[in-house]
Amino acid sequence: MTDRIRARYLIETPRGLDAAAEAMAGEQSTGTFIALPGETPELHREHAARVEEVVPLGEVEHPSLAGATGPGPHVRGEVVLSFPPDNMGTELPNLLATVAGNLFELQQLSGIRLIDLELPAAFGEAHPGPQFALEGTRELAGVATGPIIGTIVKPSVGLTPEQTGELAEQLALAGLDFIKDDELMADSPHSPFEERLDAVLRGLDRAAEVTGRRPLYAANVSGEIDEMRRRTELVAARGGNCVMVNVNAVGIAGLRDVRLHSSLPIHAHRAGWGALTRDPSLGYSFRVWQQLWRLAGADHVHVNGLRNKFWEPDDSVIASARSVLEPMNGGPAAVPVFSSAQSADQAADTYAALGSADLLYVCGGGIMAHPDGVAAGVTSIRQAWDAALAGRTLVDYAETHPELAAALATFGDRRA
Amino acid sequence: MTDRIRARYLIETPRGLDAAAEAMAGEQSTGTFIALPGETPELHREHAARVEEVVPLGEVEHPSLAGATGPGPHVRGEVVLSFPPDNMGTELPNLLATVAGNLFELQQLSGIRLIDLELPAAFGEAHPGPQFALEGTRELAGVATGPIIGTIVKPSVGLTPEQTGELAEQLALAGLDFIKDDELMADSPHSPFEERLDAVLRGLDRAAEVTGRRPLYAANVSGEIDEMRRRTELVAARGGNCVMVNVNAVGIAGLRDVRLHSSLPIHAHRAGWGALTRDPSLGYSFRVWQQLWRLAGADHVHVNGLRNKFWEPDDSVIASARSVLEPMNGGPAAVPVFSSAQSADQAADTYAALGSADLLYVCGGGIMAHPDGVAAGVTSIRQAWDAALAGRTLVDYAETHPELAAALATFGDRRA
Repeated sequence: MTDRIRARYLIETPRGLDAAAEAMAGEQSTGTFIALPGETPELHREHAARVEEVVPLGEVEHPSLAGATGPGPHVRGEVVLSFPPDNMGTELPNLLATVAGNLFELQQLSGIRLIDLELPAAFGEAHPGPQFALEGTRELAGVATGPIIGTIVKPSVGLTPEQTGELAEQLALAGLDFIKDDELMADSPHSPFEERLDAVLRGLDRAAEVTGRRPLYAANVSGEIDEMRRRTELVAARGGNCVMVNVNAVGIAGLRDVRLHSSLPIHAHRAGWGALTRDPSLGYSFRVWQQLWRLAGADHVHVNGLRNKFWEPDDSVIASARSVLEPMNGGPAAVPVFSSAQSADQAADTYAALGSADLLYVCGGGIMAHPDGVAAGVTSIRQAWDAALAGRTLVDYAETHPELAAALATFGDRRA
Repeated sequence: MTDRIRARYLIETPRGLDAAAEAMAGEQSTGTFIALPGETPELHREHAARVEEVVPLGEVEHPSLAGATGPGPHVRGEVVLSFPPDNMGTELPNLLATVAGNLFELQQLSGIRLIDLELPAAFGEAHPGPQFALEGTRELAGVATGPIIGTIVKPSVGLTPEQTGELAEQLALAGLDFIKDDELMADSPHSPFEERLDAVLRGLDRAAEVTGRRPLYAANVSGEIDEMRRRTELVAARGGNCVMVNVNAVGIAGLRDVRLHSSLPIHAHRAGWGALTRDPSLGYSFRVWQQLWRLAGADHVHVNGLRNKFWEPDDSVIASARSVLEPMNGGPAAVPVFSSAQSADQAADTYAALGSADLLYVCGGGIMAHPDGVAAGVTSIRQAWDAALAGRTLVDYAETHPELAAALATFGDRRA
């Protein structure tokens, strides 16, 4: 903790690291492109951003981003700027405008990525943070130890509310701890939110008469602000137990608004995240965004998964999950959500890489496309995690566990 | 107009354009990484996204983004997908999750940028759109023709509310049509929103006693949802005439929420935009985002400016301004805002390139750093636009207009 905001950037510049860092500090606090009469020494002392650290990382052959001007050569480095909170207060959109505003446009820079953020204690105090986090979610899901096993309603789009309810019943009967709407499915003409919510909760009630237990169901409340509030409150009123938000689509302020109107855990889906992070010389690191999402109230945060269907390498996925498990800004560990082409196949490797089973393990196709059906799909995931937690290899364990064997045969050849 | 949503992407892939386009359509509608029993032919017919167009653009030597897998070569192309609105309804965050969700992460793609969006009429009907747009803003500003000349309170950070009010008075006395808060200044300990609003309005009232006229003042209401609502309503209650929102910081849903609580024009600042657009193979075109901002209610939209302090080339700036002036989704032209190191120097070239003076021309340093003071700075901008509209060159006109001559001497050598 510090009494100034500290933001760490990876930059690239044809003007020298020190000059570029000073331009960044000026643009995001008291300066502009030309000296101004009003920028007095006193104002500068109180309010100017400071360059705290410059770490050279060497020259690059070609600029990563076009449009930068300067004599060259293009050099890379890490730069830490600090800002007094007196400049912008603690509201998250206003923090963003300072640490992640016009910086991305500066012609001094041919690379600019916000990679870390350290906030004064005032931010933790000003924001609600996760209401359930890891421990509260475990309690609500009735899963004291080990991974919370979940699935996504699939096909993502096209099921009627009644069909969704029947599928949810089947998934609950198969023993899942957690079921979520797809990020594509919130409120639509063919599956209106309220009808789907009611149908799913009825399906879960029917299953609970058999199993004695109701899984968490993350109902996707994403949408416009008033509609999200209404849906969030509706889920609680109808006896639901979790809401889901597409955080990049609704914005940090939208997520925080859901948190203020929710008495349930918030499952944060990161659809759209690739646009913000996939160029390694631009945008944001996951570490920064998950921190903001958690301050705003996310309990569960998507981190992708090992050998996923996306572009992201495994070490990046594990680093993301670790950041979600790290207590931060006075708040507790949240729940990393492993998802994207997950199946029994990745369980042991996930456990080995993360060193923890404090996670939500969400398989869509990896359960529903199991050759022996959904129940066998769920069983295969549990067997895989039992093996992992017992220190057994999946192949070995599969010899005496046919559902796992079938899962590995179906999904295992997708190994990258 | 069409009854399906049409999204145009620039993509790059090592798997062939057709296969990549089909993967995109599957991921964003009924499919996932493996065939599912529930994806029936009927469901597929009703809900699957369709590949409408594939335009090859040739091979590229190196992949633009890392993480794509496939046999190669990497080819580029434009792809149009269409989606039935029945899949997601008309709420903007849910539209985004479909046209701009997991797509950015697909391992089939080494480049993925959303470059255009055509929406069915239902979207125009479901959203408030701009309340004042170009014509309403002209009326409120009392500027029937020609550019609306504005400035930004500078230094951006550090002035007290009283100092800001005194500066606003001075700027209004100098004859400006429009004054805005900096994007860095919303509500902060050293300049609380309400105190600053009151001080500025008092300053403008004092000036109006002399000039008989009060300029528009865009008060930066950005922040958390409830705080934005409160501030937006406060501006109207205190007799203010414009609000400003950092749209990328508060999100599309946040902007729309301000619109629903505002009786005043909304000035949309795009701080943070660079992170979404600066890699030409990733993210979004401005054309797409300005369309969403306008649907959500933006009246004025920042487009950068010619020979700006940022990375963006002039032709991109002009294309952005044209898109803001294009009637869209049943709504009227909005106001393009030219800003970033603007001064008298760029007036004639801006008019020549855009072919229109329907714009807000916002100069911060380009007014305040004029060697003869703020009033001369404002005069220099008006003279420059008078010259442009009369078809005279700035250099020629400056011979008989000393404020313009001094401005060109100060700012003109910044010409790229």
